[in-house]
Amino acid sequence: MSDAQTFSQKQSPKTTKERVYDVIFGYDSKAGRWFDLALICMITASVLAVMLDSVLSIHQKYTALLFTLEWIFTVCFTIEYGFRIYSSPKPRTYIFSFYGIIDLLSILPTYIAFLFPAAAYLIIVRILRVLRIFRILKMFRYIGEADILFSALLKARRKIFVFMFTVLILITIFGTLMFIIEGPTNGFVNIPQSIYWAIVTITTVGYGDISPHTPFGQAIAALAMICGYAIIAVPTGIIGAEILQEFKLDGTRKHNNSKRCGECGLDSHANDASFCRVCGSKLAS
Amino acid sequence: MSDAQTFSQKQSPKTTKERVYDVIFGYDSKAGRWFDLALICMITASVLAVMLDSVLSIHQKYTALLFTLEWIFTVCFTIEYGFRIYSSPKPRTYIFSFYGIIDLLSILPTYIAFLFPAAAYLIIVRILRVLRIFRILKMFRYIGEADILFSALLKARRKIFVFMFTVLILITIFGTLMFIIEGPTNGFVNIPQSIYWAIVTITTVGYGDISPHTPFGQAIAALAMICGYAIIAVPTGIIGAEILQEFKLDGTRKHNNSKRCGECGLDSHANDASFCRVCGSKLAS
Amino acid sequence: MSDAQTFSQKQSPKTTKERVYDVIFGYDSKAGRWFDLALICMITASVLAVMLDSVLSIHQKYTALLFTLEWIFTVCFTIEYGFRIYSSPKPRTYIFSFYGIIDLLSILPTYIAFLFPAAAYLIIVRILRVLRIFRILKMFRYIGEADILFSALLKARRKIFVFMFTVLILITIFGTLMFIIEGPTNGFVNIPQSIYWAIVTITTVGYGDISPHTPFGQAIAALAMICGYAIIAVPTGIIGAEILQEFKLDGTRKHNNSKRCGECGLDSHANDASFCRVCGSKLAS
Amino acid sequence: MSDAQTFSQKQSPKTTKERVYDVIFGYDSKAGRWFDLALICMITASVLAVMLDSVLSIHQKYTALLFTLEWIFTVCFTIEYGFRIYSSPKPRTYIFSFYGIIDLLSILPTYIAFLFPAAAYLIIVRILRVLRIFRILKMFRYIGEADILFSALLKARRKIFVFMFTVLILITIFGTLMFIIEGPTNGFVNIPQSIYWAIVTITTVGYGDISPHTPFGQAIAALAMICGYAIIAVPTGIIGAEILQEFKLDGTRKHNNSKRCGECGLDSHANDASFCRVCGSKLAS
Repeated sequence: MSDAQTFSQKQSPKTTKERVYDVIFGYDSKAGRWFDLALICMITASVLAVMLDSVLSIHQKYTALLFTLEWIFTVCFTIEYGFRIYSSPKPRTYIFSFYGIIDLLSILPTYIAFLFPAAAYLIIVRILRVLRIFRILKMFRYIGEADILFSALLKARRKIFVFMFTVLILITIFGTLMFIIEGPTNGFVNIPQSIYWAIVTITTVGYGDISPHTPFGQAIAALAMICGYAIIAVPTGIIGAEILQEFKLDGTRKHNNSKRCGECGLDSHANDASFCRVCGSKLAS
Repeated sequence: MSDAQTFSQKQSPKTTKERVYDVIFGYDSKAGRWFDLALICMITASVLAVMLDSVLSIHQKYTALLFTLEWIFTVCFTIEYGFRIYSSPKPRTYIFSFYGIIDLLSILPTYIAFLFPAAAYLIIVRILRVLRIFRILKMFRYIGEADILFSALLKARRKIFVFMFTVLILITIFGTLMFIIEGPTNGFVNIPQSIYWAIVTITTVGYGDISPHTPFGQAIAALAMICGYAIIAVPTGIIGAEILQEFKLDGTRKHNNSKRCGECGLDSHANDASFCRVCGSKLAS
Repeated sequence: MSDAQTFSQKQSPKTTKERVYDVIFGYDSKAGRWFDLALICMITASVLAVMLDSVLSIHQKYTALLFTLEWIFTVCFTIEYGFRIYSSPKPRTYIFSFYGIIDLLSILPTYIAFLFPAAAYLIIVRILRVLRIFRILKMFRYIGEADILFSALLKARRKIFVFMFTVLILITIFGTLMFIIEGPTNGFVNIPQSIYWAIVTITTVGYGDISPHTPFGQAIAALAMICGYAIIAVPTGIIGAEILQEFKLDGTRKHNNSKRCGECGLDSHANDASFCRVCGSKLAS
Repeated sequence: MSDAQTFSQKQSPKTTKERVYDVIFGYDSKAGRWFDLALICMITASVLAVMLDSVLSIHQKYTALLFTLEWIFTVCFTIEYGFRIYSSPKPRTYIFSFYGIIDLLSILPTYIAFLFPAAAYLIIVRILRVLRIFRILKMFRYIGEADILFSALLKARRKIFVFMFTVLILITIFGTLMFIIEGPTNGFVNIPQSIYWAIVTITTVGYGDISPHTPFGQAIAALAMICGYAIIAVPTGIIGAEILQEFKLDGTRKHNNSKRCGECGLDSHANDASFCRVCGSKLAS
């Protein structure tokens, strides 16, 4: 992104490479924005095509159409990938970046299916094709609003980890307890399965595919449910508090940069303040 | 609403049109409030009638009564709709407003059923009738408390969008993964169906109509559940923080009443302010 | 409660009525606290007895014991009720207060079963007996910590109402839509039943007794789930913000009562402040 | 922990006992950290072994291997337990501490199985073995980040108790009501079972193993669901507010570092303070 700014700040006439870069990587020019919009549409369309292809009735009816679409999308994305490498000031950095790898993964499966056309691999190919779903992750590049959320989650990560670890222990204990109490005859076949049940219960999903039958098992299950119901409050509290801190930092940043009293040094002035509210001296705008 | 104020501020004797307007659109006069209350009761009654009509045993027993009620409500609402158009200072604006369209949609179905009385259309008519449920939306007009909530949600909309987009990607990835792992033999018939399962799981609804059977599928499902359980904290945090910000704004606004600059009239001064921050004149403590 | 204070502040020797009042209604004396503790234990025991009596195997085995216990509890609670009326300074106020009515309701059912011993009413009697469960509500009298929570909920009540109303409309719309889309053949028998399904889904309970079968129905259900999953953030945000406000009020109250600068009038001083932090003049302790 | 500090502050050459203490209990030295890491890995491995042993197919295939592993882990943990007692400055305090008891419980089951090798007890032994799961609780010792969370939960404990008590009453009332309304014919066999249903519903788990069938029962169930859905907001609000308070305390503590009275050393001054609020001397800005 800093590269994009460097390019646009230069006053000298742009080279072809720089122009391509502006369109593909940039967000400032009109062409860049149109390119991004078109790309998002194509990514969504290609993902939808893969999804529809998995529906048996649609697959049988539109085999040829979906196959053609699949190749059109792959070719387009390949050309785009080539242009990205060509125009990037540091191609290696791009290729091994997170999005560079996703861009590659989203075109490879179709080609692999082409090189190994043996009928037996067809199903595997479809599995690989589905990886293209990661293409949708690209869209994230286009959203800048996520910053506050991301920053809050980053700061909360250690607290979330402690919480998650506690939940893990609770799940293990409840799962094991239920295996002992209910046992294989009531559907709690083994400890991993019982832990699966504990996760289904504590997260309040509650499929009902495995459920306690003995009164004591139901009592323990009830305890697990109340636990799960109550502890959800913890991550919510953590993240809520962190987001609020981010809001305040944001506010303070806007605050501090703009105003500071030259006389008394007070710096928490409102945006529209022209005079220091404590000593009454004029503020530098 | 601004029209209502304009009308009531006028000192000259009111015309019939203005009086009708005051009763139908206004909230200030006693007649207007009684009209609103009666309307809410009628809307609720008509919605309940449609609901009860859908219960087979009630429909068979009270066919005539429900049919009569249906027509009484429709005629009343039609008269009301006519008076709204008549009394509105700008009828076109009302007709094409959100509530104008809902008002029309809530009376049309019964008439359409009348014009095409062919037996074959009866079922379709019932479907159209149900649209009258939107009448209930009218009630919203009567609640002013929703402002803080609405403002908080409006400010949070971009963060909520980023969150929803992340959830969408997670749902797509988990749905596709489960389709690959579990496959059609375990109920994951195609990707859209698997995505439906992912939504049921991540939102912690958990019907249990589709559930994983292989150990690996259950592991991925467990991961999806924990994801869903943890990320609910994010929108809660966002909206909690926004509502708190609204409270503070509200507090600042109320605050204004106590401290007001005698010179320039600015009234949002901090508690410890001795000087107006805009014009610099001393504040009366 | 203010009566209790009045009684204990009097210096003159107490009458029997006052002593009984102190034990039954009071919390200050040792006897009063022991009485409360014993009462809580008896209430819990009587509720557990009713619960166990509902289990068929226990009922058949311990019919006589449970019957005797039932009568012991009823007699004890009746004596207590009598003493409450006797010792209360304003008996009528007590009898028609919330707890007075609950106290009466918790003893009446057993007597009604005694007056109408006809075998046919036995089952109805059991139903009435269960009302004694309300006795447990008495326990609330013993907890004072609930104030901040209650105050926060009280202040949030209008916002919660707006939220609940929105949820109600959403539930009605989703329920009706699903009735039209899925219809009686897929378990959505009538609109009330479909609304029940919508509640089960939007609250993320998800029994799975009714679930959509058509792709379009599943899409609408998915939308309902995501709605329910996202909007839970709203009441959480409201109540979180209100509780935080209560905390601040609590803090401010502690703050304000203690300190105010006589010179400059600044009143947000910390508890340990001896000098005004803005003008430096000494604070009155 | 304070003992660890005492040890490391001493300048004199360490005895063997002190060195063992540093490795086993300490976190400061490199050896201590490596020991902790190795211990966490072994605990996790031993828990996984117990889990896999519960899967029938794995148990039959790897009986000998899992049995050997079991004994290796038990011997290792026994040696560790011995060293902890040996090196601890106050062995009795360690043995009767929370972790001392868990450490003992995590090695005992295997020995008890050895002393009573009768085939009939084998299944019971496995149940005892599972208690070793508590070993995982040891890991907690290694995480210090949990402090803020723990402190917030500790402060919120009384409010959480009030909330939990309210939920308990709600669950009892709803459970009893549903037993009366739906009755044994619809799966609500007795009050305890109905209370189990109420917990499953109010916590929004919703297995669907017991679900209402009568219209009135479904209406009450809907009410229970909406209750459960709405009141989850309360603990979330409580904990969110408490965490935020912890953040502020934390911030105040950090804050202190920047502004400090030169006279009396007090360092928790507000941002706009010009004078020390305790001794009244001017603060350096």
